Amino acid sequence: MDRDKNEKIVNETTQDSRRRFLGRSAMLGLAGAGVAALSGCKEEAPGKSAPTAAAVPNTGGAFHEVAPGQLDDYYLLSSGGHSGEARVIGIPSGRTLRRIPVFNIDPMVGWGITNESKAILGTRPDGQLKYLTGDTHHVHASYKDGTYDGKYAWINDKINSRMARIRLDTMECDKITEIPNVMGMHGLFPDKCDPVDKKINYTTRVFAGSEFHLPQPNDGRDLDDPSKWYALFSCLDAETMEVRWQCRVDGNMDLVATSYDGTLAGSNQYNTENAADQAGMMAAERDACVFFNIARIEAAVKAGKFTHIGNSKVPVVDGRKVSNGDPKTALTCYVPVAKNPHGVNASPDGKYFVCSGKLSPTATVIDLSLVTKWFNGELKTERDAVVAEPEIGLGPLHTAFDGKGNAFTTLFLDSQIVKWNVDDAIKQYKGDKTVKPVRDRVDVHYQPGHGYISMGETKEADGKYFNSGNKFSKDRFLPVGPLHSETEQLIDISGDKMRIVSDHTAYPEPHDAIIVRRDIIKTRQIYNLDDFPNKVTSENAGIERKGNKVHVRMMSQAPQYSLPVIKVKKGDEVTLTLTNYDKVEDLTHGCAIPNYNINFIVNPQETKSVTFKADKPGAYWIYCTHFCHALHLEMRSRFLVEA
Amino acid sequence: MDRDKNEKIVNETTQDSRRRFLGRSAMLGLAGAGVAALSGCKEEAPGKSAPTAAAVPNTGGAFHEVAPGQLDDYYLLSSGGHSGEARVIGIPSGRTLRRIPVFNIDPMVGWGITNESKAILGTRPDGQLKYLTGDTHHVHASYKDGTYDGKYAWINDKINSRMARIRLDTMECDKITEIPNVMGMHGLFPDKCDPVDKKINYTTRVFAGSEFHLPQPNDGRDLDDPSKWYALFSCLDAETMEVRWQCRVDGNMDLVATSYDGTLAGSNQYNTENAADQAGMMAAERDACVFFNIARIEAAVKAGKFTHIGNSKVPVVDGRKVSNGDPKTALTCYVPVAKNPHGVNASPDGKYFVCSGKLSPTATVIDLSLVTKWFNGELKTERDAVVAEPEIGLGPLHTAFDGKGNAFTTLFLDSQIVKWNVDDAIKQYKGDKTVKPVRDRVDVHYQPGHGYISMGETKEADGKYFNSGNKFSKDRFLPVGPLHSETEQLIDISGDKMRIVSDHTAYPEPHDAIIVRRDIIKTRQIYNLDDFPNKVTSENAGIERKGNKVHVRMMSQAPQYSLPVIKVKKGDEVTLTLTNYDKVEDLTHGCAIPNYNINFIVNPQETKSVTFKADKPGAYWIYCTHFCHALHLEMRSRFLVEA
Repeated sequence: MDRDKNEKIVNETTQDSRRRFLGRSAMLGLAGAGVAALSGCKEEAPGKSAPTAAAVPNTGGAFHEVAPGQLDDYYLLSSGGHSGEARVIGIPSGRTLRRIPVFNIDPMVGWGITNESKAILGTRPDGQLKYLTGDTHHVHASYKDGTYDGKYAWINDKINSRMARIRLDTMECDKITEIPNVMGMHGLFPDKCDPVDKKINYTTRVFAGSEFHLPQPNDGRDLDDPSKWYALFSCLDAETMEVRWQCRVDGNMDLVATSYDGTLAGSNQYNTENAADQAGMMAAERDACVFFNIARIEAAVKAGKFTHIGNSKVPVVDGRKVSNGDPKTALTCYVPVAKNPHGVNASPDGKYFVCSGKLSPTATVIDLSLVTKWFNGELKTERDAVVAEPEIGLGPLHTAFDGKGNAFTTLFLDSQIVKWNVDDAIKQYKGDKTVKPVRDRVDVHYQPGHGYISMGETKEADGKYFNSGNKFSKDRFLPVGPLHSETEQLIDISGDKMRIVSDHTAYPEPHDAIIVRRDIIKTRQIYNLDDFPNKVTSENAGIERKGNKVHVRMMSQAPQYSLPVIKVKKGDEVTLTLTNYDKVEDLTHGCAIPNYNINFIVNPQETKSVTFKADKPGAYWIYCTHFCHALHLEMRSRFLVEA
Repeated sequence: MDRDKNEKIVNETTQDSRRRFLGRSAMLGLAGAGVAALSGCKEEAPGKSAPTAAAVPNTGGAFHEVAPGQLDDYYLLSSGGHSGEARVIGIPSGRTLRRIPVFNIDPMVGWGITNESKAILGTRPDGQLKYLTGDTHHVHASYKDGTYDGKYAWINDKINSRMARIRLDTMECDKITEIPNVMGMHGLFPDKCDPVDKKINYTTRVFAGSEFHLPQPNDGRDLDDPSKWYALFSCLDAETMEVRWQCRVDGNMDLVATSYDGTLAGSNQYNTENAADQAGMMAAERDACVFFNIARIEAAVKAGKFTHIGNSKVPVVDGRKVSNGDPKTALTCYVPVAKNPHGVNASPDGKYFVCSGKLSPTATVIDLSLVTKWFNGELKTERDAVVAEPEIGLGPLHTAFDGKGNAFTTLFLDSQIVKWNVDDAIKQYKGDKTVKPVRDRVDVHYQPGHGYISMGETKEADGKYFNSGNKFSKDRFLPVGPLHSETEQLIDISGDKMRIVSDHTAYPEPHDAIIVRRDIIKTRQIYNLDDFPNKVTSENAGIERKGNKVHVRMMSQAPQYSLPVIKVKKGDEVTLTLTNYDKVEDLTHGCAIPNYNINFIVNPQETKSVTFKADKPGAYWIYCTHFCHALHLEMRSRFLVEA
């Protein structure tokens, strides 16, 4: 589409008539045919029958191509949506460097199969995994001095309200916490500094919003009266992963952002109405960004000003408006923002949070120093913390920053990325009618959700790449049946005009991600035998029987397992511990036991174990599943179960 | 590496001294340090500390780049190794267009969670899935008139000896068969024609090799005497997926190939020794390719000349040498080939099978017309069916064909692809010392396993692309911890010289794949409501209770579910059936029930169901997990479980 013409439509037609459509009255017809314009099916989108390529822009993609043997410049750490996994992707190549199983079962690495991973995932009394599902949305990494320190990343499970941590040196999940009293845990963000001790200028907390109101405790009470239900904001300890405290709020929460000085965390609220139905959730013309005064909340917890919910031991403080009437003692501050916002992001200069009004064509810019003023009793109303609210386009969702004063917001309905200048938006809001904050627009394909910029969530935002996570791909790739890939579009934002440089596919459904400079992440290429207390050594290797419990301790070294034959009796409880003695980078072995539902890998110098009941008599060939050597196929042991 | 120099090394040094190393005596030291040269850790490979790109060849990759909005030319259907999945990748872009869950659990689509997928995967008496593991190696598609018809693909699970079928119109698995009496079911291949009725010039059978010998039946007998164990070749019906027959063989089987005329199937044997240990498996200087005379086997089955094993109802015929002494009535023919072969591939002209001698630097070319001659009693020895055995390099594994008379073989130890001319190899074997079959070599990175050519397994082999599936990536991509990605390298083979055009990553561990021209695959972009007998309609929608069984029938249409509230009692057995009434391509909805371990998607016009016990009282927000609409976040229903 011609850009000038497009801009004209957006500025004169769309933002006018479509905006009216999004007003209160039009919402009444949402369940009917009137919603077509809101769904991922714009009439003007290319039809399903189009077999050939869409118009190819002059992308100059080759400039960004990563030739064979070349390395990428950035790691993109991405959520995998309801695949339950995290993903590591190279930028600009778009290569998926690694999947990290988190809430999903991965028979390749043995995630959900080994004893070690089951302990992290959690099991039921019968030993089965508690959950097979997970819905990851947000990934954020630990900070030091306002930028990433390469230590941890956190990722959420919205289905079962779990927070997981990933070690960035091994790119593996090492802890999962199920957060009590909440449902629909969606947004998360680590803090960047302690709110009190400024010497602790690194991450020690992780915050989590929750979308869904619940009866509290959720044991079957108040089922018929959702107006009594409520939601909680949670704070976890970044190291122990235990829940430190929760804060009850009015309305719900969605995404989370934190200030660089550690004093504030905020969460956008799309359902300030506390409604249980869709029309109710869209009733108010404005929703809010709720701010949490971390120092005050933690002082309240220390002072014993908290309650418990049900059997949970987590301290719960009261952040409702009715209990926080005096700003000078308030734990929370509710700043009104544009209707049904779906995002809150912190600018890299530390000054602002931006919430986008999903059902309003505007973004709301909140000055954090004014929020602090409000908490000090020096600001008249919460709304006075808003310093800009530019009209940017239809269906604005998420905003990223280039570190040069510009914001880039995804427009779900317009299928565009809009670049706008924050200072100009502030000037315009103050009354200067001569400035036009919008700098550029680019069509994306189609319906972008999250967008994020290289290092954009840090003080080192470098303004090189913007990645648009598009929710619909339609005709963008070769057809593969009713289930479509998502489209990730990489945009070069280093110049005045945005330029799409490549389309990548994504298995549904990445949501948020971060783009981290490659020098920040220092990975280990092999493990250390001593990382594993249960490692097999030449001293303890072999088969040890205690009653009907048999412990098989085995080593792998290409192309052999140390035990050619393992014999047990039907009914034995067998624990197999395997240590990989290969030290060469990339020399991973697998270990499968046919029909016993066991497979896992051991990376160089790694130890893993499985425990199972030998309930099927017969001969079973343990074999290596991870290609290791020219004699890989011949790398086997016999597991014999006597009847 | 300089190509001429390299060739010199291979021809004069490597194929000489290394070849001697691979001889019988050197094998004795395999478990010790002497195996380094055989493992995926050549001394000369770049070290782990190298942070920068390897030497970048002049690849001209941009020529093969697929710009934003452009479509790929081919579908690559790939196995996913022990991830348990199949993958669909665009060529030449390398974009992963889709993952197809097969033997793995996929919480995104609900594979392993919905009733429909559990019925395909198989459950234990307690309703839990029988297996969570799977190890896919080979994918091959159905044929008509010697080329793909775009109907089905088959993929194996080596861990649990299962064969799965994928519908290529929807790219979903629709049937899985667990094959009895075998273990380590590795290679598979569909037939291309009926052996008797030549009008049936399309796939009606699928063959499967099995690697591991077993006591028969495998119920605990003969555990201490592996010499009594044996392996079976299996034939499945392509439509019903039932096992038609099995054939007992001497030695083991590995990969499978089929003749274009339907008369022969063959499988390479790396363990003709019937050994249970590695040294034993490498004892013989030659192993074999075993050929099956399909018409004779099926006549024998028809004539009742079979036995059963244990409780299995599958007819088992006897293909051992001792029972098939007379070629004119033999069911099997064992053609000696180079030592420990790991591959058998059919040339697109229909004339040859090529087996590569993994532990010999040669490939063995077998003339199928001579195998037929042997079965007719017109050939002196089985070995006389061999018409060439060129020296091509170290660790040859798999061979692909360009349709122009050339073969391309992966060399695991040399980390190369070698291009050689079949006719020249035959001339050389006949004694012509002037011909040099090897045409070209290219280094790949590192240790290639399978390699395959666009349409190379069909009569339409087009000689455009060769994909090298490399088992080690080492320093090829940004480091991501101890677990490395695999490297897929796409090579332009359209000219005289091979040219690497791109490196792609692959989550471990793709093995074999096929590359299919895009016009052959005709996918459906939405379902038809009537595809699903349990579809929800306006007539049956709602909540139906029968005793403590509650059937909830719900519809989805963006951005709402048809039931805002669902109330059940604790202890109820709930079946939730969901039909997606959206008709727009790509408008998929998700359906998660928090803490109830449920998530699945419904594509446009699709129906799925789950059944579970409502054992936890409280309020649970059913929500849409697959982004569908601007009001996607607000798309919810309340699932209320009364205490």
